[in-house]
Amino acid sequence: MKPLLRVVKLGGQPIDDPRLLTGILDAFASIKGPKLLVHGGGNLATSWSKKLGYSPQMINGRRVTSAEELEVVTMVFAGLINKNMVARLQALGCMAIGLSGADGNLMLAQKRNPRPVDYGWVGDVVQVNGALLHTLIQQGMAPVCCALSHDGKGNMLNTNADTVAQELAAALSEYYEVELVFCFEKKGVLLDVNDESSVIRHINLLSHQQLLSEGTIHSGMIPKLENAFQALKKGVARVILGDTDAIAGTNGTTVSEY
Amino acid sequence: MKPLLRVVKLGGQPIDDPRLLTGILDAFASIKGPKLLVHGGGNLATSWSKKLGYSPQMINGRRVTSAEELEVVTMVFAGLINKNMVARLQALGCMAIGLSGADGNLMLAQKRNPRPVDYGWVGDVVQVNGALLHTLIQQGMAPVCCALSHDGKGNMLNTNADTVAQELAAALSEYYEVELVFCFEKKGVLLDVNDESSVIRHINLLSHQQLLSEGTIHSGMIPKLENAFQALKKGVARVILGDTDAIAGTNGTTVSEY
Repeated sequence: MKPLLRVVKLGGQPIDDPRLLTGILDAFASIKGPKLLVHGGGNLATSWSKKLGYSPQMINGRRVTSAEELEVVTMVFAGLINKNMVARLQALGCMAIGLSGADGNLMLAQKRNPRPVDYGWVGDVVQVNGALLHTLIQQGMAPVCCALSHDGKGNMLNTNADTVAQELAAALSEYYEVELVFCFEKKGVLLDVNDESSVIRHINLLSHQQLLSEGTIHSGMIPKLENAFQALKKGVARVILGDTDAIAGTNGTTVSEY
Repeated sequence: MKPLLRVVKLGGQPIDDPRLLTGILDAFASIKGPKLLVHGGGNLATSWSKKLGYSPQMINGRRVTSAEELEVVTMVFAGLINKNMVARLQALGCMAIGLSGADGNLMLAQKRNPRPVDYGWVGDVVQVNGALLHTLIQQGMAPVCCALSHDGKGNMLNTNADTVAQELAAALSEYYEVELVFCFEKKGVLLDVNDESSVIRHINLLSHQQLLSEGTIHSGMIPKLENAFQALKKGVARVILGDTDAIAGTNGTTVSEY
């Protein structure tokens, strides 16, 4: 039987909220056994862009990564956020090691086609170096991966953090029974969005269709669950959606195929 | 006999000059066998500070690392410079992996005493995780290390890049015969500072004293050579001072004790 590995993806809000972040880093450091953290940049990249006098451009609600924005996300994701998280995890006794997609060729990506919409320096992952992560994890390390890939031609590429988490979790399923935790500001998928105690404990393909048709799952939860089922299709054992308690394994919505 | 490892430290000028940097990355990627790159930030941190409207403060010609400057150096050294170098080395077929001193507890440091002079978030390395580097190098990787350490309490610390190179080279001397190359804008230590063909091929403790007393070695070369002899004392096999040709092993000044 493969050993259990937990892949935790940190949402934007936990990164922006120092109190939430502290709780999450504590919970992550407390996980016994193999683990890996994935993070994006929350709103920090936008606020640094503004400090620099740039005007971040959006198309259809999605950020355009211009050459100057690529510099900002490289600095903020791989530098500021990644290294401060690693330093804080080290202080908690967790042997964290920070990586971008260029490091050890972790995530090779293809720059997205500029037609029909030119999102700039954005990449879609085409290859993951799962063997590198496996080697590091076997040495007792906890990789902390930021949402940046590279194009193999010398350029970094901005990449969606949920997709990065899914791709890394899928690649590691060759070596581990992977539990992928999407950590955000809610306790899980809620039956009643205003009642944090109404967490749906378990969703499978069948109940997912029903919750969708009833309208219980709507807006932001739709892509989150789609992403979860995609991960399962790629070999991830189960996906858990929730807050800090989901990292500790004491609460959250577990998503599995059956 | 221990295998040969080359540790290349990139000076500030090569980082600031795109043409020089390209040549250096090519030369580094072409090194056969175990290798490691160390870099600081040249003048890029200062120029990003200014873009952000900060006023970098200097005392006795040395930068003070305020809390906001620490954010800048973390972004610029560990993010922008490190990841772009790693991506470019990957494009050259070199399996580079970027690290700060927090990653894998690579460099644990002590924050410098604020008395008599408070340089802020600056650290002096107290412990190097040579075993981590050895593991990565054994896997065929080339670590690319930036000049940042951490304090074990969750904070990053700015650290002198020459010292970082010396400390890493010394720690790796347990596993390798280490050749430490300080790569800067000159072809080596010159007998005549205006004649690039006057490279002194070899300096040892005895000739060092003579060159110092004659005044051939002066200003910026004094600390460079002191640093070289310190590295030798700590177990480094030899130190080479020079430009891109020193990386290729075809030119430069070799410093050894005898």
